[in-house]
Amino acid sequence: MGYPDAFEGYMIKDQSHWSDFEKKEFKPKKFEDRDIDIKIECCGVCGSDVHTVTGGWGECPLPICVGHEVIGKAIKVGDKVSTIKVGDRVGVGAQIWACLECKLCKADQENYCPHGVDTYGAPYEDGTISQGGYSSHIRAHEYFTFKIPDNIESKDAGPMMCAGITVWSPLVRAKVGPGKKVAILGVGGLGHFGILWASALGAEVYALSHSPNKEADAKKMGAKEFILTSKKDWAKPWAFEFDFILNTADMTHTFNIQEYMSTLNVNGEFHNVGLPDKPLPKMMAQDFAPNGAKMGGSHIGNRPEMLAMLKLASEKNIKPYIETLDISEKGCKEAVERVKKNDVRYRFTLVGYEKVFGK
Amino acid sequence: MGYPDAFEGYMIKDQSHWSDFEKKEFKPKKFEDRDIDIKIECCGVCGSDVHTVTGGWGECPLPICVGHEVIGKAIKVGDKVSTIKVGDRVGVGAQIWACLECKLCKADQENYCPHGVDTYGAPYEDGTISQGGYSSHIRAHEYFTFKIPDNIESKDAGPMMCAGITVWSPLVRAKVGPGKKVAILGVGGLGHFGILWASALGAEVYALSHSPNKEADAKKMGAKEFILTSKKDWAKPWAFEFDFILNTADMTHTFNIQEYMSTLNVNGEFHNVGLPDKPLPKMMAQDFAPNGAKMGGSHIGNRPEMLAMLKLASEKNIKPYIETLDISEKGCKEAVERVKKNDVRYRFTLVGYEKVFGK
Repeated sequence: MGYPDAFEGYMIKDQSHWSDFEKKEFKPKKFEDRDIDIKIECCGVCGSDVHTVTGGWGECPLPICVGHEVIGKAIKVGDKVSTIKVGDRVGVGAQIWACLECKLCKADQENYCPHGVDTYGAPYEDGTISQGGYSSHIRAHEYFTFKIPDNIESKDAGPMMCAGITVWSPLVRAKVGPGKKVAILGVGGLGHFGILWASALGAEVYALSHSPNKEADAKKMGAKEFILTSKKDWAKPWAFEFDFILNTADMTHTFNIQEYMSTLNVNGEFHNVGLPDKPLPKMMAQDFAPNGAKMGGSHIGNRPEMLAMLKLASEKNIKPYIETLDISEKGCKEAVERVKKNDVRYRFTLVGYEKVFGK
Repeated sequence: MGYPDAFEGYMIKDQSHWSDFEKKEFKPKKFEDRDIDIKIECCGVCGSDVHTVTGGWGECPLPICVGHEVIGKAIKVGDKVSTIKVGDRVGVGAQIWACLECKLCKADQENYCPHGVDTYGAPYEDGTISQGGYSSHIRAHEYFTFKIPDNIESKDAGPMMCAGITVWSPLVRAKVGPGKKVAILGVGGLGHFGILWASALGAEVYALSHSPNKEADAKKMGAKEFILTSKKDWAKPWAFEFDFILNTADMTHTFNIQEYMSTLNVNGEFHNVGLPDKPLPKMMAQDFAPNGAKMGGSHIGNRPEMLAMLKLASEKNIKPYIETLDISEKGCKEAVERVKKNDVRYRFTLVGYEKVFGK
């Protein structure tokens, strides 16, 4: 069939063969008057893609086409679309729809809308399952479609759509900026954005990692110091130091969490954006008392935050550290397998879409 | 020996006989130039007293005299004391000393000072172990000694010194006031202060309890609604409602914590001031994501908060709901045993000190 009746994507049909991608057609949702059809140019590879295909986060509708760091060109816009025109270069992140009518949506909290639809693997109200960006096209509501500033390359913009905003939103909500000491825990796909954004926002940034070989990069990204958490008693000199810890690690269940929390300043926050498959370490209510600490989490960000992030990235010419891979059955396989074993510096973007999906 | 060389108090010498109090003498710390000697008039009975004597929070130096909601009369003040004069009616809470020199103390966070000394069972720098207010006298640093407004009765002021401030500090730090919806979880010693203070601060207050027989009192204290948490699916109608949940319960380990957290508004906080002997229920990082929630905790409050709390209580004539018991071996026993089984509405104050310790 092909566009516009069907889109084509690299899909997984069995979570026990989670890296066996197959190119298949799928039906998009019905086109509505605030929808935009996007011919995809590239897509970042997110840890969520891996948690989803492996079943780490549980079952998902199959077959599934993952990918929610989508960049491409608008090729059709609905009658009521006012923010995007055909030909614009645009991005779509991890959320593709919300009701825009509930109290949360009206308070610019659409990323927490209980009716929200994830970009892949989630049912629209009409029952269609959303499918992601390892594919030829995506159909997105304009509220979740963002114009990409001209000076940001598509391969760099891709990872901003999920990794970037996931980290940006908690940083700005915690008022990270000049005078704040911020620790970024884990220097990976999310963490490296944490260092880039927090530095650009003017904070004093400390990179925490158990991998000594991340030090040079972390400092290049803007970290003032690199703190090696595999060293015994690493936390002692940092007691009460950090106003905010952004935990991007995927191994939080292995942490001595009390040790990490002891480095928070009074009423500081330990904020999880990594979402491991396993529970957090055991905690007592007492663990929050010595410094009046908080533990928090969040879910991507809202539209105003996405626009502000892209604006700052454009103005300050901030580039993520990425590797590219050509999209194909083999390319998708390599991408998810290497993300699973943390073998990427620091994010993959799948490119070369025209070679498999045409111009 | 007697005052001023020794004080006398009801002490526990064995945590396996945690309600067998014995009247004994103990030596106070050396009198220094910012110290105040207080002849005690009454003392509230705190959950901490019970956790300490039973060993629920671990071992403690023995014998121990607990009690950290102390009201009495200043009978001697050090040469450098400027805030209190002999004859003043004063209170002492759960903290009796801090360095007043570290960055936390200088930032009005002395309640988190790493050198701080608890009112009982903690070593001063000279090695003396602090002893609490089930006793004839207490020797306190003036920074931790508070003048009690004339219109607050001593028996009512006692419980404010720990229960009151423990609840007050997180409420005011969360900017609880007009326009905020606040849930107070647990209607007991701490929780009833939560309802009183949050209402007085102008918030819309909801009392959450698994005991239907607390409803009438909770409403009298100022709750707009009473929510029975023993009812199946109680949380559903309250999704995304509360800006702040103050958890005063001592049974948090038995909670479906995800259900409670689902009632938080976006970026709202579930704040633990109850400190159970057992760990918090198992949580995933994911549990914080649906509403960008936080979990927090705190440790009493600072001096400015204590003074503001007493001022509001005086101005609005706020009285805690208390029962009194005469201090004695029997009275102390009854107090801790009944607090342990939650058989008190809503706080005990030990009174009648002159009968056992003289005028």
